[in-house]
Amino acid sequence: MIGIFDSGVGGLTVVRAILEEIPGYDIVYFGDTAHSPYGTKSSETVIGYTIKNIEFLLSQGAKVIVIACNTASSVATAEVLERFSVPIFEVITPAVELALQISRNFNFGVIGTRATVTSGIYEKKIMEKHPQAKVYSVACPLLVPLVEEGWMNKPETSMIVKKYLLPLKIRQIDTLILGCTHYPLLQKVIQRKIGRRVRLIDSSIGVSSSVKAFLAHNAEVKQQLGQNGNLMLFVSDVTDQFQKIAAMTLKTGVTLKCVKL
Amino acid sequence: MIGIFDSGVGGLTVVRAILEEIPGYDIVYFGDTAHSPYGTKSSETVIGYTIKNIEFLLSQGAKVIVIACNTASSVATAEVLERFSVPIFEVITPAVELALQISRNFNFGVIGTRATVTSGIYEKKIMEKHPQAKVYSVACPLLVPLVEEGWMNKPETSMIVKKYLLPLKIRQIDTLILGCTHYPLLQKVIQRKIGRRVRLIDSSIGVSSSVKAFLAHNAEVKQQLGQNGNLMLFVSDVTDQFQKIAAMTLKTGVTLKCVKL
Repeated sequence: MIGIFDSGVGGLTVVRAILEEIPGYDIVYFGDTAHSPYGTKSSETVIGYTIKNIEFLLSQGAKVIVIACNTASSVATAEVLERFSVPIFEVITPAVELALQISRNFNFGVIGTRATVTSGIYEKKIMEKHPQAKVYSVACPLLVPLVEEGWMNKPETSMIVKKYLLPLKIRQIDTLILGCTHYPLLQKVIQRKIGRRVRLIDSSIGVSSSVKAFLAHNAEVKQQLGQNGNLMLFVSDVTDQFQKIAAMTLKTGVTLKCVKL
Repeated sequence: MIGIFDSGVGGLTVVRAILEEIPGYDIVYFGDTAHSPYGTKSSETVIGYTIKNIEFLLSQGAKVIVIACNTASSVATAEVLERFSVPIFEVITPAVELALQISRNFNFGVIGTRATVTSGIYEKKIMEKHPQAKVYSVACPLLVPLVEEGWMNKPETSMIVKKYLLPLKIRQIDTLILGCTHYPLLQKVIQRKIGRRVRLIDSSIGVSSSVKAFLAHNAEVKQQLGQNGNLMLFVSDVTDQFQKIAAMTLKTGVTLKCVKL
């Protein structure tokens, strides 16, 4: 079973990408909706939640973990790699690799939650591989609530996106990393506001390719994963809003089980 | 000691009102920032948090509890009144009483979080006292994140407030209840968008008057409360953002202690 978690509904974009890229694997998803959002909270708190989430997924039989949340990936990866022995994937590294492949001028933009941007993780990972790169980051804390309200196509959202992207637009970036799993749901308006020449990197696609590549070379782990196409969805708080957006993201009806951690 | 809690920073408007109306009492405040916001979560989850918060305040020596959060007041009051024996105040009833005193045409507007509006508590309490009243409620889930970002004076906020208030504006309300402790921080723009003739009811002022009236008639409880002007602030997660808004709301430097519940 592949275990995937996020602070809420955003990580379902990763589930969707994995279902498309490597169909058939059993998946257990946990959305920590009782503690959502993570992006406005301290590193210490996010690390605590991340550990609990992984323990829950392991208890459900997960043999591989995907941290489908940029905030948790940014601040908690080092900690959980030390603590757990199963393979753990996060969304930052694959997005950075994709960005480095695509860029021509190595001027990168990164947008994310306040916690992700404050962590400086994208800059660090990009500079490690390409020290001459320029990386401009902007925290966009209002985009998560706007997506969770379903305001993807409202003019107010468009104005707010424009305001957030302005400092990146003047920097001549050619690649923009969407450093939050909610943002692919705003892809259209982001593309319109940043301009058509800038390539957008969707971290959900990056991580699913990484998992695919890993399984191709690790037959032993692959064997441990069930391949009956089961999808179990757990949340720590059931709300109508979550069910609505989950169904929209996965394009299918969803049954949620609630579990208190 | 008076114990006051909210999901985050919003309840500090209640602290401010109590400091002004009945100065000198010792106050212990708890902001449940690790679980914030409450307004997008289910009743069951909010009830669980509310019980834990009250238990914490009692453990700190609180002899009176103020639920300085409309969402918790809406969905958890009945439950905690049964469970705890100390006097517990909530923000809904005083706001309703104030609104009924002020209104002339008994057409009321209520704005709040999704959880508060869904609970229907304001309608119920108003209709109990004045069955001919008309109550129009609108959930405004984006206003809390906008306040927490400090976007009180941005044009985008103004547009969003206008959009939310439009259905109330056409209803000829003469009184608008600000059913969330964050909203007094948006008082100016709300007043501008709803029109100068509509009176706004700030629930933080209502509840502080209730506590004052109660203490005037309950000497025994009053004696148990320390009156050394101490103010202790606890949060379940310390973030820079909280400290900034706390200092702005209380107009003084603040020292936060962190406690995990």
